[in-house]
Amino acid sequence: MFESAAQDHTLDKAAFAAEEPALREALLDAQFDLVERKEFALLVVMSGIDGAGKSQALARLYKWLDPHHLRTHAYGPRKGDEKARPRLWRYWRDLPAKGEIGVAFGSWYREPMLQRIRGKTDVATYERELATINGFEAMLTNEGIVILKLWFVLPADLQHKRLKALKLRDRSERHVLEGWGKNLTRIREAAEAAARLTSTGHAPWLVIPSADARYRDVLTGKTLIETIRKRLTTGAPPAAPAVQSLVPRLDGKSILDGLDLSQRIESAAFKAERNHYQARLAELADSAAFDDIAVVAVFEGSDAAGKGGSIRRVTAALDPRRFRVVTIAAPTDEERARPYLWRFWRHVPAKGSFTIFDRSWYGRVLVERVEGFCSEADWLRAYGEINAFEAELAAAGIVVVKFWLTISAEEQFRRFKDREQTGFKRHKITPEDWRNREKWGEYALAVSDMVDRTGTHSAPWTLVEAEDKNFARIKVLKTLCERIEATLAGR
Amino acid sequence: MFESAAQDHTLDKAAFAAEEPALREALLDAQFDLVERKEFALLVVMSGIDGAGKSQALARLYKWLDPHHLRTHAYGPRKGDEKARPRLWRYWRDLPAKGEIGVAFGSWYREPMLQRIRGKTDVATYERELATINGFEAMLTNEGIVILKLWFVLPADLQHKRLKALKLRDRSERHVLEGWGKNLTRIREAAEAAARLTSTGHAPWLVIPSADARYRDVLTGKTLIETIRKRLTTGAPPAAPAVQSLVPRLDGKSILDGLDLSQRIESAAFKAERNHYQARLAELADSAAFDDIAVVAVFEGSDAAGKGGSIRRVTAALDPRRFRVVTIAAPTDEERARPYLWRFWRHVPAKGSFTIFDRSWYGRVLVERVEGFCSEADWLRAYGEINAFEAELAAAGIVVVKFWLTISAEEQFRRFKDREQTGFKRHKITPEDWRNREKWGEYALAVSDMVDRTGTHSAPWTLVEAEDKNFARIKVLKTLCERIEATLAGR
Repeated sequence: MFESAAQDHTLDKAAFAAEEPALREALLDAQFDLVERKEFALLVVMSGIDGAGKSQALARLYKWLDPHHLRTHAYGPRKGDEKARPRLWRYWRDLPAKGEIGVAFGSWYREPMLQRIRGKTDVATYERELATINGFEAMLTNEGIVILKLWFVLPADLQHKRLKALKLRDRSERHVLEGWGKNLTRIREAAEAAARLTSTGHAPWLVIPSADARYRDVLTGKTLIETIRKRLTTGAPPAAPAVQSLVPRLDGKSILDGLDLSQRIESAAFKAERNHYQARLAELADSAAFDDIAVVAVFEGSDAAGKGGSIRRVTAALDPRRFRVVTIAAPTDEERARPYLWRFWRHVPAKGSFTIFDRSWYGRVLVERVEGFCSEADWLRAYGEINAFEAELAAAGIVVVKFWLTISAEEQFRRFKDREQTGFKRHKITPEDWRNREKWGEYALAVSDMVDRTGTHSAPWTLVEAEDKNFARIKVLKTLCERIEATLAGR
Repeated sequence: MFESAAQDHTLDKAAFAAEEPALREALLDAQFDLVERKEFALLVVMSGIDGAGKSQALARLYKWLDPHHLRTHAYGPRKGDEKARPRLWRYWRDLPAKGEIGVAFGSWYREPMLQRIRGKTDVATYERELATINGFEAMLTNEGIVILKLWFVLPADLQHKRLKALKLRDRSERHVLEGWGKNLTRIREAAEAAARLTSTGHAPWLVIPSADARYRDVLTGKTLIETIRKRLTTGAPPAAPAVQSLVPRLDGKSILDGLDLSQRIESAAFKAERNHYQARLAELADSAAFDDIAVVAVFEGSDAAGKGGSIRRVTAALDPRRFRVVTIAAPTDEERARPYLWRFWRHVPAKGSFTIFDRSWYGRVLVERVEGFCSEADWLRAYGEINAFEAELAAAGIVVVKFWLTISAEEQFRRFKDREQTGFKRHKITPEDWRNREKWGEYALAVSDMVDRTGTHSAPWTLVEAEDKNFARIKVLKTLCERIEATLAGR
């Protein structure tokens, strides 16, 4: 999850200097309206890896805001008075009053996450604690507290460097950091579960890319402004977060910008690799162990990115009795009369078989979002519903493999033209395809949000550079084989 | 929980015959509107102990409704096709289309509950599964399915008799029933957790008292009508259930009706018992083990029921450094600026001490509900919030003891008059007290709902017959001693 936060997001000195005065004024304005109207309190939860600069971001907030109505509480291990009482007691004690802004450093997420990361609790206990937190936050929201949860992140390499450089104050703190350093997989899973299960409409997580301090702080400030403004405008507890993306952006960058589309595989090498992976796939599907699992493969991508061609290279390796390709177009009457996931549940494979979806449930957060076919509330809740759906599949032993095939706008133009001019391909191109091209940027951001929110440990996204068809097809075949192998090995 | 369902609820033959034609017509009308408007589907989940007559209730529904748009699915252990797919697959397969009514016998609650009752899963796993179910039901609701979950119950003695009499069809079924018979505590806890954690505004549990078949079926029918009508009127997924009470009523009976207020303790016996229990309480509070726990005692009751006198008999036994009595009146400015539970969290005792609340957070679902001081949505969500609060206290080793002191309306009248005529008691009676008397019936139903929804395993209610002050004081002291002893013994 939140893959797009690892991209290079920066704000140079000049841009920062140009933005700062207006940002500061807008922040103060928002804060004064909050103080005057006393309709709600704002509680900002600052979390994330040490070294990402939470304290510096907070120092900047203190510089920008009026500190009279701003209070920060830092929570470490419980001691004394706190230890003699229930875990939540200290957070209740410190709740901001209406009109105030409270900042919590190390919140009610700290203990459950640390215990999970250190292996002291199991997944079920951890998820139960997250569900309890959801109840707690829902209640605070209904009672006039707006909760904004910020997760400060660094790309993995930078994180490692900063952790090493940190001067550690005391041994207990050092122990924490060493724990963080060692258990990267558990940390990722714990953070992912928190983002997945506690990113509610009323108390969303927002991930703040923190490699660049100026970008980090301006984004934090703008997020605060939007959150306060939206609640002042609607006057009611929020049904949807003020900021739509899990990783908000200042720079309009999408996850697809980082892909190297120049990667190619020449014809001879392609044939050899294709034969190799198809044989491996066939062997896996025919193994006795495969009868205990199943595969759901999802193919999404820009128009003309080559989904069909990639799918054919997969099915060519499989016994027709083992797989089914489901092409998703407009829903039937029967499907329209039921919840949108119903049409996909119908095709969930039995053990020992494959279902390959040519487009999928992700239409909800792609075309339906961009074209406005459903409401904002509908597509925002869809991320969580999709994660729950895929988690249910994974828990039943189904390998969920998801591909996004990417081509450049220029390559798409060439392929469209080619389709128009080639007799048997002409049915594959419609005026709608040309119209969709005009929303290229919007689709790219929708894809970015989709990968950030639904790329989970048990159902990760594979971004496929599809400018060269050979390269794409091999990457698809190879990924499929590896995911199936990993699943069989883990059983 | 749902204590009031165990009371004697009946509908005699003549009353049934008089009601049936109108009920049937109203049901058909509601169903036809549903079919015509096709705005949503109704999914009725029928659960509860075998022997409560779910099948007979359903047979009656088939008689009353048009069976063309009504479909029932029964779910036992998964077999064949179902076993080869994820657990939820079969429920998805059978979802009713808009305009239809679907009935599920043995739903998605079955497997998690059975596994918990048989001890195959722990509490954390079970609660995680319930949280997953909440997500599933929220999604169905947002997608146009109205979910009505009915839990058919019998008083314990009748349940036992019917279970014995049941002709068991096959061995696997017998195994289930034997399990149910043996693990009554686990069953109660599992049912309670389900009612507590999955009674959401959009998919509430309703408990149907089933000892009397006519009462059961008329109540079921009326519940269906109200649910369909409310959704047709509002046109949006429900934020609050169509029926407010966990145990809906036809007869207006409250949990207080069953109490025997004639119970008395004479003066001599009272003194001996009081001395005995006060000494026991003092000893418990002074024991070394007590330093690891704490007590929250809640006193609620009708005006003039004797809360103050009972509290004094408790505090007389305790070292003043160990306890604090908190009297709840109108909130301060500071309290008003924060969530309503904040003022109670402030007084949560440290380990080794008592906090005694003279009135409490239950004002939210009593006076605030009856007098309309907060919205229906606010007091409806308060039950869950209060349960979560008390669960948090209990988890931290705090014994939560809750008393409701009951007197008759006549006895209250006598005590009011006495207060008016006795100099030092005159400040204890106000015009408001007289006004509250006029809402006696409404308060009784609010108390009934409160006990049904918040009488949990870890924080049960004790109903105290307080017509005789001696009797009440001894019951309070005895209950406190026993709860503390049980907690210390369980550690």
